[in-house]
Amino acid sequence: MSKRGIFISFEGVDGCGKSTQIKELRRRLRGMGDRLVLTREPGGTVLGEDIRKILQSHADGPEIDDRAELLLFTASRAQLVSEVLQPALSEGKCIIADRFLDSSTIYQGVARGLDGETVGKINRFAVGDCLPDVTILMDIDPADARQRLGERGVADRIEKLPESFFRDVRDGYLQLARAEPGRFFTVDATDKIGAISERIWNMLTERYNGLLD
Amino acid sequence: MSKRGIFISFEGVDGCGKSTQIKELRRRLRGMGDRLVLTREPGGTVLGEDIRKILQSHADGPEIDDRAELLLFTASRAQLVSEVLQPALSEGKCIIADRFLDSSTIYQGVARGLDGETVGKINRFAVGDCLPDVTILMDIDPADARQRLGERGVADRIEKLPESFFRDVRDGYLQLARAEPGRFFTVDATDKIGAISERIWNMLTERYNGLLD
Repeated sequence: MSKRGIFISFEGVDGCGKSTQIKELRRRLRGMGDRLVLTREPGGTVLGEDIRKILQSHADGPEIDDRAELLLFTASRAQLVSEVLQPALSEGKCIIADRFLDSSTIYQGVARGLDGETVGKINRFAVGDCLPDVTILMDIDPADARQRLGERGVADRIEKLPESFFRDVRDGYLQLARAEPGRFFTVDATDKIGAISERIWNMLTERYNGLLD
Repeated sequence: MSKRGIFISFEGVDGCGKSTQIKELRRRLRGMGDRLVLTREPGGTVLGEDIRKILQSHADGPEIDDRAELLLFTASRAQLVSEVLQPALSEGKCIIADRFLDSSTIYQGVARGLDGETVGKINRFAVGDCLPDVTILMDIDPADARQRLGERGVADRIEKLPESFFRDVRDGYLQLARAEPGRFFTVDATDKIGAISERIWNMLTERYNGLLD
């Protein structure tokens, strides 16, 4: 690929402020028009939507095996890569992904107790060389994230999970960030919205000067 | 598991005579009644049937990515293992599977050109320790298998594939059999139906004396 686009993913525990920062970044990148692509998982393709429906329809039915669930999420991601992300990147577009493979590595690994290394390998198989150029990790103390969710009135479902779960998720993310310092950009998600947005923007324009116009 | 059942899978290229031999074995095992379980993939569970429908509905739609396809097959298999096969085996039942993970290793590897080792690893992840006790490989020269399919009037679809594809599939199977001589039992599929059935039966009764009554 001669001119390649930029692939940015956002990661972090629920309540970390990802959505707000994605909105901020979209605003700054509005000049890109349809060269800006937003994705979320599972979904984003016809196959992905079918898989999302399966996962939802089984919520009250026979329990989906943890491994089957991981494989379904990963199938959706493989399709998204080949049908949407790879073509967009080869056309020089900019992708912003609200969660990507790291979420799977962390949540399926921590939440389902599946072997993290194997989960990582399956994820890598699904995405091939289509990895984010930069992954913005919104780091926050789980207690603070919970409080935010509580204020938004969505804490019920989340609060059922033990405190330790969220600590494990946070630790898992920080571990990934340490393992790939070139890809991860960790920000303190307790800072003010404007300050975080500014930090992210400065980093992006420094790294990808001219490609985000 | 104190008393564990027996898990038998049949493998081989299309036209090798698997179905006939499975029928023969079912006949010999009819005394087992509902302690005999037959499976085929994808399917065998509600989730598996949903996945089968997805694969079929996309046959004429947007192309399913090769990796996504493998992951969908594997998700169906993981569910089959946890929902049907593991419980059946722990109840001491006998399972006969018309194709299992080796088909995936061979066909997705050879047909789709995916890395065989990775495909094998993903398959192993999906099935855990639920591997067949014995895998009966019906070995046949691809030209002979084609002729049989031609006689049955189902050669059209198959004949579109190049001769080399079938040779690769056969070689792949024989390689798997050499790598796991304890699990694989290779028979010459060009022998007479009765003779093959006899060989398989003798092997099974020798190995699992008393468990197949």
